[in-house]
Amino acid sequence: MKGTMKVAVMNGIGQMGYTNRDIPQPKDNEVLVKLEYVGICGSDMHYYETGRIGDYVVEPPFVLGHEPGGTVVEVGKNVKHLKVGDRVALEPGKTCGHCEYCREGKYNLCPDVVFFATPPVDGVFQEYVAHEADLCFKLPENVSTLEGALIEPLAVGFHAANQGNAHAGQTALVFGAGCIGLVSMMALKAEGVSKVYVVDIMQKRLDKALELGATGVINSKEEDVLETMAKLTNGKGIDLVIETAGMEITTRQAIHVTKKGATIVLVGYSKSGEMTLPLSLALDKELTFKTVFRYRHIYPMAIEAVASGKVNLKGIVTNVFDFGDIQHAMDSSVQDKANIVKSVVKF
Amino acid sequence: MKGTMKVAVMNGIGQMGYTNRDIPQPKDNEVLVKLEYVGICGSDMHYYETGRIGDYVVEPPFVLGHEPGGTVVEVGKNVKHLKVGDRVALEPGKTCGHCEYCREGKYNLCPDVVFFATPPVDGVFQEYVAHEADLCFKLPENVSTLEGALIEPLAVGFHAANQGNAHAGQTALVFGAGCIGLVSMMALKAEGVSKVYVVDIMQKRLDKALELGATGVINSKEEDVLETMAKLTNGKGIDLVIETAGMEITTRQAIHVTKKGATIVLVGYSKSGEMTLPLSLALDKELTFKTVFRYRHIYPMAIEAVASGKVNLKGIVTNVFDFGDIQHAMDSSVQDKANIVKSVVKF
Amino acid sequence: MKGTMKVAVMNGIGQMGYTNRDIPQPKDNEVLVKLEYVGICGSDMHYYETGRIGDYVVEPPFVLGHEPGGTVVEVGKNVKHLKVGDRVALEPGKTCGHCEYCREGKYNLCPDVVFFATPPVDGVFQEYVAHEADLCFKLPENVSTLEGALIEPLAVGFHAANQGNAHAGQTALVFGAGCIGLVSMMALKAEGVSKVYVVDIMQKRLDKALELGATGVINSKEEDVLETMAKLTNGKGIDLVIETAGMEITTRQAIHVTKKGATIVLVGYSKSGEMTLPLSLALDKELTFKTVFRYRHIYPMAIEAVASGKVNLKGIVTNVFDFGDIQHAMDSSVQDKANIVKSVVKF
Amino acid sequence: MKGTMKVAVMNGIGQMGYTNRDIPQPKDNEVLVKLEYVGICGSDMHYYETGRIGDYVVEPPFVLGHEPGGTVVEVGKNVKHLKVGDRVALEPGKTCGHCEYCREGKYNLCPDVVFFATPPVDGVFQEYVAHEADLCFKLPENVSTLEGALIEPLAVGFHAANQGNAHAGQTALVFGAGCIGLVSMMALKAEGVSKVYVVDIMQKRLDKALELGATGVINSKEEDVLETMAKLTNGKGIDLVIETAGMEITTRQAIHVTKKGATIVLVGYSKSGEMTLPLSLALDKELTFKTVFRYRHIYPMAIEAVASGKVNLKGIVTNVFDFGDIQHAMDSSVQDKANIVKSVVKF
Repeated sequence: MKGTMKVAVMNGIGQMGYTNRDIPQPKDNEVLVKLEYVGICGSDMHYYETGRIGDYVVEPPFVLGHEPGGTVVEVGKNVKHLKVGDRVALEPGKTCGHCEYCREGKYNLCPDVVFFATPPVDGVFQEYVAHEADLCFKLPENVSTLEGALIEPLAVGFHAANQGNAHAGQTALVFGAGCIGLVSMMALKAEGVSKVYVVDIMQKRLDKALELGATGVINSKEEDVLETMAKLTNGKGIDLVIETAGMEITTRQAIHVTKKGATIVLVGYSKSGEMTLPLSLALDKELTFKTVFRYRHIYPMAIEAVASGKVNLKGIVTNVFDFGDIQHAMDSSVQDKANIVKSVVKF
Repeated sequence: MKGTMKVAVMNGIGQMGYTNRDIPQPKDNEVLVKLEYVGICGSDMHYYETGRIGDYVVEPPFVLGHEPGGTVVEVGKNVKHLKVGDRVALEPGKTCGHCEYCREGKYNLCPDVVFFATPPVDGVFQEYVAHEADLCFKLPENVSTLEGALIEPLAVGFHAANQGNAHAGQTALVFGAGCIGLVSMMALKAEGVSKVYVVDIMQKRLDKALELGATGVINSKEEDVLETMAKLTNGKGIDLVIETAGMEITTRQAIHVTKKGATIVLVGYSKSGEMTLPLSLALDKELTFKTVFRYRHIYPMAIEAVASGKVNLKGIVTNVFDFGDIQHAMDSSVQDKANIVKSVVKF
Repeated sequence: MKGTMKVAVMNGIGQMGYTNRDIPQPKDNEVLVKLEYVGICGSDMHYYETGRIGDYVVEPPFVLGHEPGGTVVEVGKNVKHLKVGDRVALEPGKTCGHCEYCREGKYNLCPDVVFFATPPVDGVFQEYVAHEADLCFKLPENVSTLEGALIEPLAVGFHAANQGNAHAGQTALVFGAGCIGLVSMMALKAEGVSKVYVVDIMQKRLDKALELGATGVINSKEEDVLETMAKLTNGKGIDLVIETAGMEITTRQAIHVTKKGATIVLVGYSKSGEMTLPLSLALDKELTFKTVFRYRHIYPMAIEAVASGKVNLKGIVTNVFDFGDIQHAMDSSVQDKANIVKSVVKF
Repeated sequence: MKGTMKVAVMNGIGQMGYTNRDIPQPKDNEVLVKLEYVGICGSDMHYYETGRIGDYVVEPPFVLGHEPGGTVVEVGKNVKHLKVGDRVALEPGKTCGHCEYCREGKYNLCPDVVFFATPPVDGVFQEYVAHEADLCFKLPENVSTLEGALIEPLAVGFHAANQGNAHAGQTALVFGAGCIGLVSMMALKAEGVSKVYVVDIMQKRLDKALELGATGVINSKEEDVLETMAKLTNGKGIDLVIETAGMEITTRQAIHVTKKGATIVLVGYSKSGEMTLPLSLALDKELTFKTVFRYRHIYPMAIEAVASGKVNLKGIVTNVFDFGDIQHAMDSSVQDKANIVKSVVKF
């Protein structure tokens, strides 16, 4: 497709703008996708607010956005499983396919990954993107492109549940009821865990958690997490914790609230990068700590979970912004965390 | 509790009768349970029809029945987690707790297990039973003792699903829509498998499977299993098979219908004990075969699955017989397999 | 490198010959390897004797040989980890890197694999080969290119041991003392299994097994396998069996000789492709059957096992033939199985 | 056996003495063992120096010692696998056999365990002990009772290796070259790990590590651990770390020195019970942390590893003290850690 497209760019900390670029040409193994929805992720906000995450530094103009859903408008000549008109969710990381990690199936650890909106690789706050067709997953009729965009964060939730070896019969606890906490809760339920409790300090988020299927919620400003969970489990303790808050206090609570032999999955990054933890207690209980870096092998499963009605993915969206309002979209998302659980940009 | 109780005994092949025995006295670590429902299992029918299963030979008078649910009426002095009036499901096998298998947690393989209705150990077609309290699992308010009785076969289904490492995102196929096939299907669903198909040749059983939540059913008298599954999976093949029919033909189909790297769980026993299988094809596909002998660590999970509404356990029961009609109950169950999916004896 | 090279071709069943072909040009991600040793595998012999294996049919002229070791003589411009003069072992299968199996790390199941000497893909009984550099593994100083050639069969042995989850403290039994049986035995030892017994009917092979480290051997022509193993394990039974003979009788013995909960790894293909097995006994013991199709992720580990002295890989070679004697090499290997355990072609 | 025996008791912090007690009578399922060697463990020293470990407080007179080896002198009437004269290693923890953890095979987490020398349960610095026969493991002829005593710490090393899923082909690093570090290194080697490096700051201990089979050692007082390991692994990083030093600095180094996807096994307890760690780095690498509380299912494997010559268990012993010198034994062990790697008391 010839022509130009509108691209939203971050021109500096807290400064969004627009530019025009050529519509990309898909290679033989790629498809061109007209984007319809792109979610705003916590990392987009972090780059927007501070210009960096760890060693990844934004060089303006930079394109944010890595949670895309859209419709295929052009197909490379070697692509067989997609055709024009197919609606797709895009997995944002292109991996090398040949390194030790790729060959072992842990492609999320590929050191040469090219991942949307991770400097210096641009993201997808733009009208079109050409992407490897194998990373574009066709959506069934009853899954919208809005949900397609949200498959990306849901994939993190499923990977967290997988890392924790979630299964029927467990009692689980999720710390944090932001987007990742909510999708983790829903992933746990979809994997057969009957009892999933959620802890947060913002009541709106806890209400959302209940609405989306949490077994129970705890506002840790008002209740003692350890006491409440002891009561709810008849003193048995929790089998599986997913920590998405990235706080030292919640991670410490996780160690206390779990039963012997339990697993704690760490998903949230702390501000300082460090935490002080009661590790001797963890040894006494013979706990396992798993960690999560993005996800692998999740898109088909996550799409199916939405299609089958197990996961109410639309339900996490509290705000939809127009692509023309990108500055407002970013500013609101950053400033109103008590009310905005998840924002999505509509094209 | 002093007094005598009515006991149904198998007096010979095809011959049931009644006798009176003393109500047993629970030991310090036991409870006395007044039975309310006991399921009739395929193995009960097999002993009834032929007098033996493999090396286990019935010596009349023998008491059948190993799927019990009832109410605690007396409590041994060392028992802490149960009290009079608690309704319970009884796990039927007492294990030694000290052998290699018990210590490793594979207690279902304990060579010294004492298991209800496995000669020479009597079963529970009787009014009362004294049983190790740790093997009596309290039922929540919304789970009946009829369902409590059926936890036993459901445990086989969950163990089969566990042996197959069932998980969200898979497509599964269950061969056989008898009691064990149905509970396997429901266990797979409860463990997060979205798509579970069921194959049988009796339409009534397939209708039951659909009613209880199967994604689809195949009457293999009328449809070609391989063709139909190829269509339903877009040629991808099945991730996980649970074979409960115990037939060579279905086990061969299992090897053909699976995708590379898949797992086949063998649950059904064949009549001759032997099967001829295309193993080279299994090697080409690098298939895994798991097998199932009873179950382990399942009761709490299975009870929770029923309590949470994930498993419609009552739904498998097609016939309830009165304890006073035991001869009729056994005869009907044996003779009318096309119409009777699952019988239960009510006390 | 310009010029031509000598290539040994199979011109028909039992007919070897030579031809000249251009030396291949390595692509940017390939290296050109001057071959020094290529092993003769059972599948080479099978193609040579019968013209086919299952659906794979030889169309002459066809090049056999897929166990290569040699020295790098030219390096593609994108290759970083190899240089001219490096001695390498070549993993013979190029996989697509993008299918479901490749992405999940089970690349041995890639449906689009291009594998040496698997019709219609030519093998490496020729002086040079250009091969993907990522599949060429540098040999340490103390590992020869003869051993490099034998890394391929050793990889099968390690994959079999891995599929069986071999570990310290087990007692294992290998059926068959041909090349794959011997490398399986050595792989088990290298993975920490202390007690590894080997069963065969050819005494020369059993002597070789003892020489290479087997704990004990059983000539099943002279001894009853079940009785002997019962004695050797104090009646406990075997934890892990690797079946490489591809015989129904040995696979049946495997089911009898194992303890409850054990694993049997099937590696050998039977002539008819089918086997009749006592599956009910397997269910009673809750056995697991794993199967092996080639291998994955093994080369670095296998090379290290040879370098560290754990595996005496040279020791399996009983016959080295000159490349100029290829007809004789193939004929002898096929006709004298009692004396020839493993043949290698030297360039 | 009637009569009295000499018992060494801790009468207060730093104060050992002797008393006489009746020789215990073995129950039906027990054996009476005449002790020959008992190792002195770090926990014995800790109780001796401080009077407590966490919530476990010594009430004098208290008997230390939980690493026993000896000879059976009397056999309970239900004991079948042992006879008078058998030399045995004693696993020190009696578990309930019925709780959730015991039933699942994680008996080391049994809340009702009765463990030698863990207050208020006395240990075995005494001439005789009656112990559950199933916890007394017969030693083969080529394993001495000195080695039998040391099976206990070796079991911790094997459990650490198991928790880390140690296997052939890995490169491992052990922090700490005290008794537990050394047995962990030897367990890793016995489980097939070829390359095992050891870090400590005491050169004597590092020399001992080399003597016992470490691939290489690093004195972290003199060398930079991260630089040296980067060099030794060609920048690839470590697959598996076992941390036995219980120091924050080494645990931080573990997070830095590992490759992506690696596992760190925490064995050592820190003094404060807390550590401050760079968890965000752990998330970036998607590391797994496993922890170790005692061990399970290890004795037979550990004894076999010693019998087969894979583990030079005698080699860790630097000092043997006479039972009559118990005060001296304890004082020396506590005060001379630079020279004493492992002390054993001889009866």
